[in-house]
Amino acid sequence: MTKKPDDSLTIMTELVLPNDTNLFGNLMGGRLMYWMDIAAGMAAQKHSNKRVVTASVDNLAFVSPIKLGNLVHIEAKVTRAFNSSMEIYLKVWGEDLIEQKKYVSNVAYYTFVGLDCDMKPVKVSEITPETELDKKLFDGAMQRRQMRLILGGKMKPGDATELKELFVSLNEDI
Amino acid sequence: MTKKPDDSLTIMTELVLPNDTNLFGNLMGGRLMYWMDIAAGMAAQKHSNKRVVTASVDNLAFVSPIKLGNLVHIEAKVTRAFNSSMEIYLKVWGEDLIEQKKYVSNVAYYTFVGLDCDMKPVKVSEITPETELDKKLFDGAMQRRQMRLILGGKMKPGDATELKELFVSLNEDI
Amino acid sequence: MTKKPDDSLTIMTELVLPNDTNLFGNLMGGRLMYWMDIAAGMAAQKHSNKRVVTASVDNLAFVSPIKLGNLVHIEAKVTRAFNSSMEIYLKVWGEDLIEQKKYVSNVAYYTFVGLDCDMKPVKVSEITPETELDKKLFDGAMQRRQMRLILGGKMKPGDATELKELFVSLNEDI
Amino acid sequence: MTKKPDDSLTIMTELVLPNDTNLFGNLMGGRLMYWMDIAAGMAAQKHSNKRVVTASVDNLAFVSPIKLGNLVHIEAKVTRAFNSSMEIYLKVWGEDLIEQKKYVSNVAYYTFVGLDCDMKPVKVSEITPETELDKKLFDGAMQRRQMRLILGGKMKPGDATELKELFVSLNEDI
Amino acid sequence: MTKKPDDSLTIMTELVLPNDTNLFGNLMGGRLMYWMDIAAGMAAQKHSNKRVVTASVDNLAFVSPIKLGNLVHIEAKVTRAFNSSMEIYLKVWGEDLIEQKKYVSNVAYYTFVGLDCDMKPVKVSEITPETELDKKLFDGAMQRRQMRLILGGKMKPGDATELKELFVSLNEDI
Amino acid sequence: MTKKPDDSLTIMTELVLPNDTNLFGNLMGGRLMYWMDIAAGMAAQKHSNKRVVTASVDNLAFVSPIKLGNLVHIEAKVTRAFNSSMEIYLKVWGEDLIEQKKYVSNVAYYTFVGLDCDMKPVKVSEITPETELDKKLFDGAMQRRQMRLILGGKMKPGDATELKELFVSLNEDI
Repeated sequence: MTKKPDDSLTIMTELVLPNDTNLFGNLMGGRLMYWMDIAAGMAAQKHSNKRVVTASVDNLAFVSPIKLGNLVHIEAKVTRAFNSSMEIYLKVWGEDLIEQKKYVSNVAYYTFVGLDCDMKPVKVSEITPETELDKKLFDGAMQRRQMRLILGGKMKPGDATELKELFVSLNEDI
Repeated sequence: MTKKPDDSLTIMTELVLPNDTNLFGNLMGGRLMYWMDIAAGMAAQKHSNKRVVTASVDNLAFVSPIKLGNLVHIEAKVTRAFNSSMEIYLKVWGEDLIEQKKYVSNVAYYTFVGLDCDMKPVKVSEITPETELDKKLFDGAMQRRQMRLILGGKMKPGDATELKELFVSLNEDI
Repeated sequence: MTKKPDDSLTIMTELVLPNDTNLFGNLMGGRLMYWMDIAAGMAAQKHSNKRVVTASVDNLAFVSPIKLGNLVHIEAKVTRAFNSSMEIYLKVWGEDLIEQKKYVSNVAYYTFVGLDCDMKPVKVSEITPETELDKKLFDGAMQRRQMRLILGGKMKPGDATELKELFVSLNEDI
Repeated sequence: MTKKPDDSLTIMTELVLPNDTNLFGNLMGGRLMYWMDIAAGMAAQKHSNKRVVTASVDNLAFVSPIKLGNLVHIEAKVTRAFNSSMEIYLKVWGEDLIEQKKYVSNVAYYTFVGLDCDMKPVKVSEITPETELDKKLFDGAMQRRQMRLILGGKMKPGDATELKELFVSLNEDI
Repeated sequence: MTKKPDDSLTIMTELVLPNDTNLFGNLMGGRLMYWMDIAAGMAAQKHSNKRVVTASVDNLAFVSPIKLGNLVHIEAKVTRAFNSSMEIYLKVWGEDLIEQKKYVSNVAYYTFVGLDCDMKPVKVSEITPETELDKKLFDGAMQRRQMRLILGGKMKPGDATELKELFVSLNEDI
Repeated sequence: MTKKPDDSLTIMTELVLPNDTNLFGNLMGGRLMYWMDIAAGMAAQKHSNKRVVTASVDNLAFVSPIKLGNLVHIEAKVTRAFNSSMEIYLKVWGEDLIEQKKYVSNVAYYTFVGLDCDMKPVKVSEITPETELDKKLFDGAMQRRQMRLILGGKMKPGDATELKELFVSLNEDI
């Protein structure tokens, strides 16, 4: 049985409270990564109907600071599954409801693994992408996976057949 | 004026409490990233004596789960500075004091930027590495920076002169 | 200028963590009311683009306990505005992703007031309901408001012209 | 065996900390409802000596904002028991110790249910009111219960024999 | 103007939640000291109507562990004032409402100092003890103060005229 | 088997966040005692490899306030063991990285007890001090223990043979 990315779509909205902020009164990066981890985990569990744990997080950059009292919107969905592991795509933006401004915070890829009760990896459903964006994310997932394997020392760069393509496609806008 | 990596060495020890854990009773990845962000920020501030914010986090993988009641050790230090930005190297391991076992959790690179009171980037001290490890981290920092720029869409892969070397050196043990 | 209820639609998803639970391992009612207050406040601010504060909460009943590790889904939107005050309708349900079960937790009405910087009430946009449900919520809002005024001692039962209707309509399924 | 309301009297005092406040620096309504739920649960447990869970909360209105650094006083006690359910009366006020001012925040009724280890409802002790106030609260409890049943769709307005009286008595000062 | 100890009486009741507990499921000592500090600070502020800060805590011992889900009762009141400093007496006990058992946790003395807006110490009201216990606490306060001064290196043991008496009276039951 | 004090050395670094502060924006004493308890417990567990609980805390005084956004450094190590109990020495200082200032906060002694799974006290390793400071702390531990026993009503002052010495040595600088 396969599932669509939107079957795992998870929408989270958080309010930036004083204890989430640094000395500038902006959301700390670590607090945001914490919320993103929760959102990604919910999406992974929605897709797999298994208990899941965080395996890795791809390079992520913080574009605009999110202010105290502003909203944090997080959307997460599974892009592709590889046996027991799932790649989750996250889009994060801030919103100032008084000033009526939305601003991009970041885009990220988390990888989760489905586990049984004894913490052994279990196979999860495949993904069948439907929209254009979902297909693009699905295709890119293989490249990002090779990158992870290389960065994790589990694959040699020379064996990463899709890698060259990665360096071409990576920077295109999604 | 330059500083040594050890001038910014920050040691953090945390205890895994119930609310930090997932359904397996292990530390959630997001909580760990939160603590790592705090530790990296303290190291960056120690180096720069400026207010700092998280700019990016490199790909990171979680190796072993850290259990409820175990200790989390985080060591962070600045490896290299690029104008206003600083790369911070973090080593994280868990410790079960009853079973007397230490186990690696992960290794990561966070990038922070030094800011003045108006949130404008300010130049921070250079780094002069001293130990073999510090030199290796210092040299690798340029490659990782190119990778970040490429992944962030701010550099074309063809211009990343140190990248090829990266793919060779990246997986060596530090 | 008027707005539609869906302009203020706010979706919040939370994970039940150990510290949110009572001795049965189920979400405490108070923690849920806290999250609902945050969600309602976000919807009220989305509608009004003003700073807002909680004015009142209508009678609410907890139907099914939400378990540790389950998701809490909260949907909030403004049903109607009365000068500076806004009624927000909330729907809350739990979800067990392993067992693949969703279950209703409760339905509630919170009232928020829009304030300027000096904490004086400010007029907020009117609501123009569009869907059948939104119209029903809009119409019922007047009755619920009379009930609140009576319960708050600010209106005599005899003056509540819509009250009789309330007791007829109140229990219908929405 | 019956008990008096004061046997379950619970006094809670909390300090408003930064993370409890909204953008005006005042206590958020949701945080207060969380504390009230804890206090009401303690009173219900004191009365019943059983594990208890929140069943419902009656309409509540927030009168005065409570400021950062001020005290929150909560007094809770059981007014009446109906088989396994208990109505708890709560009085909440703020106190500014520097300015030496006390101010009413709200008055509320929470309903809790006593459960055995298998989460089956268990009968709890009856209440024998003693003071004038306790008797008034005891008598009003039947009316408020009918209101809850009607609002919860479990009783038709026409069957609520005490309801008319409710609308007369409801607004009197307690 | 003088005040009585009971003018500052502060009653706090807390519920032990999962994150407050150690591996035995009992309240951690540090969490309890945190709550006691809040309670003592509220009593000191009630007495002085000034902003206050913790100056010191006398030797304290934990007698019985307080269990998850049990109540923590804290009573605090000022025993005596010395210029800007106030000694606060705290009594802490646990309560298991299911088992219907109360058990002593500890007794402690915290010292707070009243400060003006510039953080300069300000004189606070004197205490006039009324009950037998209050008088005993008032008299003992001088001895405990000498002990604090000696332990803090601000008085030589030979100058502590009341110290001998302390070692006699200290262990008597209060 | 004996251990050295440095075998249990625990280094903790915390960042003062908004919710940790009082109305002056300084770290609350109770929050610091909480962190010190965690640090002391980690040192005791490192020494004993047993589960441990807080038994007592010696008189402690707060010297300088630690500001919002500053670092809190805590160093803890076991000074001496008495059967199942261990005395832990803690040194706490604040650090303002922008102003480049370090300042002493306090010095404290916590006592922990090692327990088996049934919460029965278990014998822990002896301490063999090595450095001058460790020897001084080791010798002083006996005196402080007598003081604790006297203050706890478990020893008569006349039997405290080392006490006289205590009052001489206590105030010397460590």
